[in-house]
Amino acid sequence: MSFVQVDKDSHFSYQNLPYGIFSTPETPKKRIGVAIGAYVLDVSKLWNRFKGPFMNAEAQKVLGEAETLNALMGLTPEHWVETRAVIKGLLSSDDPLSIKNERDNYLIPMDKVTMHLPAQIGDYTDFYSSIDHATNVGTMFRGKENALMPNWKHLPVGYHGRSSSVVVSGTPIRRPNGQTKPVETEPPQFGPCKLLDFELEMAFFVGGPTNELGKPISIEKAQDRIFGMVVMNDWSARDIQKWEYVPLGPFLAKNMGTTISPWVVPIEAMKPFLTENYPQDPAPLPYLRHNDSFNFDIKLQVSIKPEGASKEDVVTKSNFKFMYWTMKQQLAHHSATGCNMRPGDLLASGTISGPEESFYGSMLELSWKGSKTVKLESSGEERKFIKDGDVVNVSGFCQGNGYRVGFGDCWGKVLPANPL
Amino acid sequence: MSFVQVDKDSHFSYQNLPYGIFSTPETPKKRIGVAIGAYVLDVSKLWNRFKGPFMNAEAQKVLGEAETLNALMGLTPEHWVETRAVIKGLLSSDDPLSIKNERDNYLIPMDKVTMHLPAQIGDYTDFYSSIDHATNVGTMFRGKENALMPNWKHLPVGYHGRSSSVVVSGTPIRRPNGQTKPVETEPPQFGPCKLLDFELEMAFFVGGPTNELGKPISIEKAQDRIFGMVVMNDWSARDIQKWEYVPLGPFLAKNMGTTISPWVVPIEAMKPFLTENYPQDPAPLPYLRHNDSFNFDIKLQVSIKPEGASKEDVVTKSNFKFMYWTMKQQLAHHSATGCNMRPGDLLASGTISGPEESFYGSMLELSWKGSKTVKLESSGEERKFIKDGDVVNVSGFCQGNGYRVGFGDCWGKVLPANPL
Repeated sequence: MSFVQVDKDSHFSYQNLPYGIFSTPETPKKRIGVAIGAYVLDVSKLWNRFKGPFMNAEAQKVLGEAETLNALMGLTPEHWVETRAVIKGLLSSDDPLSIKNERDNYLIPMDKVTMHLPAQIGDYTDFYSSIDHATNVGTMFRGKENALMPNWKHLPVGYHGRSSSVVVSGTPIRRPNGQTKPVETEPPQFGPCKLLDFELEMAFFVGGPTNELGKPISIEKAQDRIFGMVVMNDWSARDIQKWEYVPLGPFLAKNMGTTISPWVVPIEAMKPFLTENYPQDPAPLPYLRHNDSFNFDIKLQVSIKPEGASKEDVVTKSNFKFMYWTMKQQLAHHSATGCNMRPGDLLASGTISGPEESFYGSMLELSWKGSKTVKLESSGEERKFIKDGDVVNVSGFCQGNGYRVGFGDCWGKVLPANPL
Repeated sequence: MSFVQVDKDSHFSYQNLPYGIFSTPETPKKRIGVAIGAYVLDVSKLWNRFKGPFMNAEAQKVLGEAETLNALMGLTPEHWVETRAVIKGLLSSDDPLSIKNERDNYLIPMDKVTMHLPAQIGDYTDFYSSIDHATNVGTMFRGKENALMPNWKHLPVGYHGRSSSVVVSGTPIRRPNGQTKPVETEPPQFGPCKLLDFELEMAFFVGGPTNELGKPISIEKAQDRIFGMVVMNDWSARDIQKWEYVPLGPFLAKNMGTTISPWVVPIEAMKPFLTENYPQDPAPLPYLRHNDSFNFDIKLQVSIKPEGASKEDVVTKSNFKFMYWTMKQQLAHHSATGCNMRPGDLLASGTISGPEESFYGSMLELSWKGSKTVKLESSGEERKFIKDGDVVNVSGFCQGNGYRVGFGDCWGKVLPANPL
């Protein structure tokens, strides 16, 4: 039990304790915090309480002085477990480590802090691991019979993304200008994207020391290299993508911004929500095979709030458990060539759709390529894609018995395109 | 004139003065050097000679203390011109700044230094901008009529690559294991890549202060954001690529390693070798249009030296001037969406082939998809793709009147795949 009261609907229960990077108007230095209820615990001020065998020598640098989570991410699961145990003690109502009698020194109301990107992201990779999403998109563009490409069930299809444009929740997203070819028989045009979309995704941060180039991470060791997760909106310009992406994949359609939640939930906090892996048929090749469950029941949703509207409307509800490929498989595949994976690298799920329309993870699917509209009940508006001024919010949580382990909000407001 | 004698075939003339990051056994700290002839000028020790209006306040941090070129790259063309002028003075035989009487304090024989990656590479992007290469590959896989995709002449096709696996010349490259599907009707396999290839490329480092997300770099301003160039070998696993790349592009086929030369040649040094742009028909859209020449006559070659051979054989000679899209166009396109480009980001040309077979920039093209062999005259061996133990060296230079502005070597030795 924590001395901090946490509402049962709060994402930030005592069972969660996600890490983030924050600053305050009084102390603008970026530093490590942990969310609990409506507060942020200033871990940076408490580094000297981490006296365990793993963290004792590391705490000053990794927790006290760090301006990103990279150094903490770069340690090992033993370090992470010990760190989490101390934080549990600090926030406990009866542990010897408890700070309950000095809480005002270390707990800052969440509405007083500014959140920053949790890590310096070295490389960002986006997978395409939801079978329902891949099937929907494939059906739209190639027909039902050829919906899934021949490789899809044999390997987690993915591509390298742009890391510089990954931004923290709240950062506005400028509608991109780009080249499109709206009429097949006419030359291409340059102008504002007309089919701006969200993609409901989750992503994990790579942890552990970097593997040397040429040394793969085996599927057995993959879990030790997974630090924690965030929710993500991988903003997408569908019309730009359609014209540019053959043969080398999505490029500018994705690099105007990718929004992540500021709070990184450690895998340890998600373990109570482990659920069965998605059945894989055919069985994957041995380098991708693992028998333990590494799938998670995480309820996800996306809401849209038009400019001037007083309420947001939820347009889809999905679940992380619909993922066909596990994070361990993604990581083992990514590094099978010997690719070096660094702490702070970000690996995303791809759009997470489920088997029914109400679970679809993008406007492309919800409007079925713009062939129908999605109603926003509160405002009476309707959408096929995203309009200027819309605030899109992706969020998710695991539901425990009377508590939640949540990822907070991941929102962004769309600004109008730059004039040409 | 410099007091340092430079052989006329040396890549590192007084007209060149490329930047790199080096260390020595005596002083293992990484620091900034400039190549001249067979020497490296230890610029880090000379920072207090940079007294000009632009560099005076920056020199200690940017030249004296920096362990990468990122901070120098992050300044402006005015800073770069001033820095270069001082370095010319230091190495001059008659300038007041000349160090000729204290040369032993600052000039280190090149064979005594270890070279490192010149910058921390935030994001690495690979274009596909050689029309002959794109036509060759398209012809092989789709036939002559459909060789160039419809978008190819309208925009510089490119994709985000993996930055963690960009390594400096001399780093061994481990042949990757990966998933391939050698027989169409059989299931895929996992094992050593059988079609390992080089790609003869060049790349430029982005310079200047980062543009804010949402603010494109116009074609008119693009040149100010180009710091300098390197030669590159973008190692490629053709069989892995063939199976994985639909629909999201090359992924693992490229992330086992990308080798670059350690010396970054400033654009200023390349200006005497400006040559006409490749004729573009149709004319590109206005955001990609520039009338000034920004193409360069750079002679490129690739050699292979088999394990145990005493000599390397040149297997292809190409030229940067065969590029269809200019670097300014690549950069303006990349950022048209508002993508933020950071100093140290690396943008590569794609394989540079020319209109004749002797100019082809990959074994895929030289062996025409493995349908014929390439002779290595010195050793009497022949190749369709790259074998274990082969040393592949990409190099390039501009030929002046009695001097060269070169990029040095960019080599890597292929190690056998890890056992399964």
